[in-house]
Amino acid sequence: MKTESIKTIFGITLALTTLLFVACIPSCNPKNQTKMETTEIFPKGQPLPKEWFSGSAFLTTLVAKDKNHEFSAGSVTFEPKARTNWHTHPKGQVLIVIEGEGFYQPKGQPAQPIKKGDVVNIPENTEHWHGASATSKMIHIAITNYVGEEQVTWLQPVTDEEYNSATGSSN
Amino acid sequence: MKTESIKTIFGITLALTTLLFVACIPSCNPKNQTKMETTEIFPKGQPLPKEWFSGSAFLTTLVAKDKNHEFSAGSVTFEPKARTNWHTHPKGQVLIVIEGEGFYQPKGQPAQPIKKGDVVNIPENTEHWHGASATSKMIHIAITNYVGEEQVTWLQPVTDEEYNSATGSSN
Repeated sequence: MKTESIKTIFGITLALTTLLFVACIPSCNPKNQTKMETTEIFPKGQPLPKEWFSGSAFLTTLVAKDKNHEFSAGSVTFEPKARTNWHTHPKGQVLIVIEGEGFYQPKGQPAQPIKKGDVVNIPENTEHWHGASATSKMIHIAITNYVGEEQVTWLQPVTDEEYNSATGSSN
Repeated sequence: MKTESIKTIFGITLALTTLLFVACIPSCNPKNQTKMETTEIFPKGQPLPKEWFSGSAFLTTLVAKDKNHEFSAGSVTFEPKARTNWHTHPKGQVLIVIEGEGFYQPKGQPAQPIKKGDVVNIPENTEHWHGASATSKMIHIAITNYVGEEQVTWLQPVTDEEYNSATGSSN
């Protein structure tokens, strides 16, 4: 093989390498992959009050109570380990999990693992909490019924001891 | 440059090209990308009746009317061009779009483009239709209020002419 031919083949190979590399950059980039996997449906929204939530939790309101709807609906994002206080609803609540993994625990019962795609129908006047798992965030839509102007009664925080014991987590 | 050196560089370049290609296969593969982008939250569910829907539409019920909920909620999947008939709700309906793109049109008004993340609050007794765009599927959660046992009155189909005219599509 002549040196000129080898140089030509070398040049072509180098050009192809560069082309392939450039073509693959968008899909090989881990940042882009993460973006695709975690594109969320709703904005994260406003931080929820520390008085009623432990850890980082956020709310985007989707539907307000009005003349037709005797409920409100919102997208709630819980970062890992974030959870509601213990609380009750006078006319129940529905949770529709749209992302991640977490728990729902009615008082005196084991915590139930819940994940993307699950629906929880919470009865009226049932003390409970819900939130993310220790290692995953959780996002759920919450549809919460009203009785008059009331839809929730907030109680004491879920302590770290209660959370770890119920979810099998350690600090 | 000696021929041997050129051969060595050529060999290394070829090896690097192969390595880069193999390393990029998983993320460059369009099948994998599609899978990541279209992981759906709920099962597609049961086909909706041709009597009330044009094209391919499916329902997974998430919440049934019960003693607490004066509504039902479900995940509705519309394949491209699929849509409801014209219809009304006696106490309104909320659509929460969780995937894709489509349209909502109240009778006598322009069709409104809707997409993932959008919420539509449909008034009571308002003739309308909703469905996918011509090129994208759409999935929405629908929360539909009841008056007694009634939540919808079905009317005539949205014809191809009406759909194409309202959405700017052609057959």
